[in-house]
Amino acid sequence: MATKAEDFNEWYNEVVDKAGLTDKRYPIKGMNVWTPYGWSAMTRIDGLMRREMARTGHQEVSFPLLVPESEFKKEADHIRGFGEEVYWVTRAGKNELDVPMCLRPTSETAMYPIFSLWIRSHADLPLKVFQIVSTFRYDTKQTRAFLRVREIHFFEAHTCHVDEEDAERQVRQDVEIMDLLGRELCVPYLLNRRTDWDKFPGAHYSLAADAWTPGGRTLQVATIHHYRDNFAKAYDVGYEAEDGTRKFVHQTTYGMSERLLGAIVAIHGDDRGVILPPAVAPVQVVVVPIPEKGRQDEILQESRRLAAELAEHVRTEFDERDLRPGAKFFEWEAKGVPLRLELGPRDLANGVVTVARRDAEGRTTVPRTDIVTTARDLLRQIQHDMYARAEASLRAATVDIAAPGEARQAINRIGWCGSEDCGRQLEADTGMSILGTPFPREPYGGTCAVCGKPADAPAYLARTY
Amino acid sequence: MATKAEDFNEWYNEVVDKAGLTDKRYPIKGMNVWTPYGWSAMTRIDGLMRREMARTGHQEVSFPLLVPESEFKKEADHIRGFGEEVYWVTRAGKNELDVPMCLRPTSETAMYPIFSLWIRSHADLPLKVFQIVSTFRYDTKQTRAFLRVREIHFFEAHTCHVDEEDAERQVRQDVEIMDLLGRELCVPYLLNRRTDWDKFPGAHYSLAADAWTPGGRTLQVATIHHYRDNFAKAYDVGYEAEDGTRKFVHQTTYGMSERLLGAIVAIHGDDRGVILPPAVAPVQVVVVPIPEKGRQDEILQESRRLAAELAEHVRTEFDERDLRPGAKFFEWEAKGVPLRLELGPRDLANGVVTVARRDAEGRTTVPRTDIVTTARDLLRQIQHDMYARAEASLRAATVDIAAPGEARQAINRIGWCGSEDCGRQLEADTGMSILGTPFPREPYGGTCAVCGKPADAPAYLARTY
Repeated sequence: MATKAEDFNEWYNEVVDKAGLTDKRYPIKGMNVWTPYGWSAMTRIDGLMRREMARTGHQEVSFPLLVPESEFKKEADHIRGFGEEVYWVTRAGKNELDVPMCLRPTSETAMYPIFSLWIRSHADLPLKVFQIVSTFRYDTKQTRAFLRVREIHFFEAHTCHVDEEDAERQVRQDVEIMDLLGRELCVPYLLNRRTDWDKFPGAHYSLAADAWTPGGRTLQVATIHHYRDNFAKAYDVGYEAEDGTRKFVHQTTYGMSERLLGAIVAIHGDDRGVILPPAVAPVQVVVVPIPEKGRQDEILQESRRLAAELAEHVRTEFDERDLRPGAKFFEWEAKGVPLRLELGPRDLANGVVTVARRDAEGRTTVPRTDIVTTARDLLRQIQHDMYARAEASLRAATVDIAAPGEARQAINRIGWCGSEDCGRQLEADTGMSILGTPFPREPYGGTCAVCGKPADAPAYLARTY
Repeated sequence: MATKAEDFNEWYNEVVDKAGLTDKRYPIKGMNVWTPYGWSAMTRIDGLMRREMARTGHQEVSFPLLVPESEFKKEADHIRGFGEEVYWVTRAGKNELDVPMCLRPTSETAMYPIFSLWIRSHADLPLKVFQIVSTFRYDTKQTRAFLRVREIHFFEAHTCHVDEEDAERQVRQDVEIMDLLGRELCVPYLLNRRTDWDKFPGAHYSLAADAWTPGGRTLQVATIHHYRDNFAKAYDVGYEAEDGTRKFVHQTTYGMSERLLGAIVAIHGDDRGVILPPAVAPVQVVVVPIPEKGRQDEILQESRRLAAELAEHVRTEFDERDLRPGAKFFEWEAKGVPLRLELGPRDLANGVVTVARRDAEGRTTVPRTDIVTTARDLLRQIQHDMYARAEASLRAATVDIAAPGEARQAINRIGWCGSEDCGRQLEADTGMSILGTPFPREPYGGTCAVCGKPADAPAYLARTY
């Protein structure tokens, strides 16, 4: 098997397979099968999003998948941005359709004609909805499980507001939610305001959460867009203001996807397999009996009791299959179960349980009596340590450079005047992409590495997925 | 507004709109928008299915939406059955696809090539999975919210077994699950074994749950299919048996859809709106303050306290909008909230709360002190009564007839020898469809109403949706 250090890309592919998170053998490239295990992890991530949406007053909806070409083309930048990568339904049964319909690449063009019917007056605002659905992009680059797929498991929140400022408040709320989710998923990131030539098609501005992967590239794991009234004008989403005049709403969107699961795999996995954060691991604790000849029944029985006790408090699997313990360890490690408990004859004699943390080497023993408290404490500790380690890596990977020639396989912080010319030059000189400027703005006193003019903000340069 | 008694179809359309369960103004016919309220009800129905799947050892998966034409065409009956009503993706970006891909009308052809990889030996069996996804059918009949749509919110369980008998056991388990769900959703039904010419394309036999709607038609709300090894042979889903030989698996599927929500609307709704069973109502109790001049604050405060107390135990909405109580009643009745609590000055003075059951006329008062217990008891009673009333209607609508000429707008039970000729004749003579024969078989001593030969079982004849 490839090692993570030597061949990250190959390692990633293998580790995803070994964990059984997805099955890539479906006969359409980039459209993968969610296995029970992978789907369980993904829907736990969805669950965290749903919790946050409920907390912040968003309501869940579900819009149709198909968008008529006529609606899709109403926002000019949007169609320019997505036109090359949408799938088209042109036939139904044996009939050619009069108006082709595309599979949503994202749902602005499906939702906004309906928003224009739902919103009448300022009393209907803000409108805050979200959905978790499949979106489709005909991406011609090499596909990679979770990171670059053609059917994408997607979260999208869409909001409408009375004015730009209220939409701005929504952006800040989304940023806070992302902060929480990043911690729970153990995926730290830099939040960047994308350049104008790299923002979402139709957006006023775009923020993106860029995680750092050991493969030496950043990975965009979430985006937050402020649309101002660009889409509202194209789709006639207006309202009667308190003063009786008609105004257009200001809109935002917040998008995340299965890439978050890919980021967890990429950041935390090791040569034994993936490592899942306790917050989203389908199995948090696996109990493996270590039988001894003549005492099998006793050990199985005690292990079963241990597992049953734990199962009332944490997601527990009791592995009583007729396999060598070593084979079981190998499998659960590949699957990334955060905590393994073993119970053998010596443990039984000493009133202890042997524990192995998936995110650390070695084993220890803990008293059998407090096992539920101990397991919970350990899971909390694993959760904390996974985030801390990933954050340290992100920090270590973020370096200051003074000239494009110094750029390394890292996130390179460099002075930039903000002009497109100098930005493109930086990209050309480094062979990297500008991720944009930090959000929120930080004080910065540098100069542009290209033109030498004063720079309000640094730019981040990196290779990206 | 149309009344249910006079114009069921028009009433149905209006009542769905008034309740805000779906928005039919999406620019593609038969593809509707799930509003927050409708989606909340639907996902509660999904939740009951998920609970039952977990209880019976099914695992949730998610397969790709698109199926290559080459895979889709492998099972000959299946393609004959669905060929006329699938949507085809033929273009991606600006490229014509070499192999068109269809939007799943159901997922046999997406799943079974992968099952053939997942299953190696008898130890991998039974395989029991399910998914809840959108499916697509280009239905040319008139569309109707939840009952006949082109993007269908769909539940599908797929299982593989060592032999026909084990698959048969699965069918019986599905029947039990359906029984439970029917009670919770207050949708009673007749379980029929479909005729051979009406079974699922590719199935050995099909069972269907047919509910009775006041519109005078039956509505198929669930199907359970036994495939034997028909699909297994087409998709090469085999396993190594204990004796070392290679065998094909026997398969079953169990399908349900948003039609269940449509059935609830059709069966229970009245001229004031829909009535949702407490088990799936997004709001189980609405608390409406009845303010009196000069005592507004006190009444609002007490109502809020009441709602907060209830909210810890049942799904409660506190309606403190600045509207007349009558307008609020009207709206919550249209939405089908099972229980309404009112708190006015007289209630306050007497230490009581006024309660109105959505499924009954009139109001009563109950002591304020035991309100949580009272509300729970009432919800249980509503749940029970709704089912009982619907079951009585179904029984009343099921009539025995001796000759086709006696057929009424009902579910007509008639002797049938089982031959296709006589069956088609019964359909032609009545202008109705044969729903099939009761499952499980009941003792029956009649004769065929067409040929006069002995009949093993009666057939049910009805108009269908």
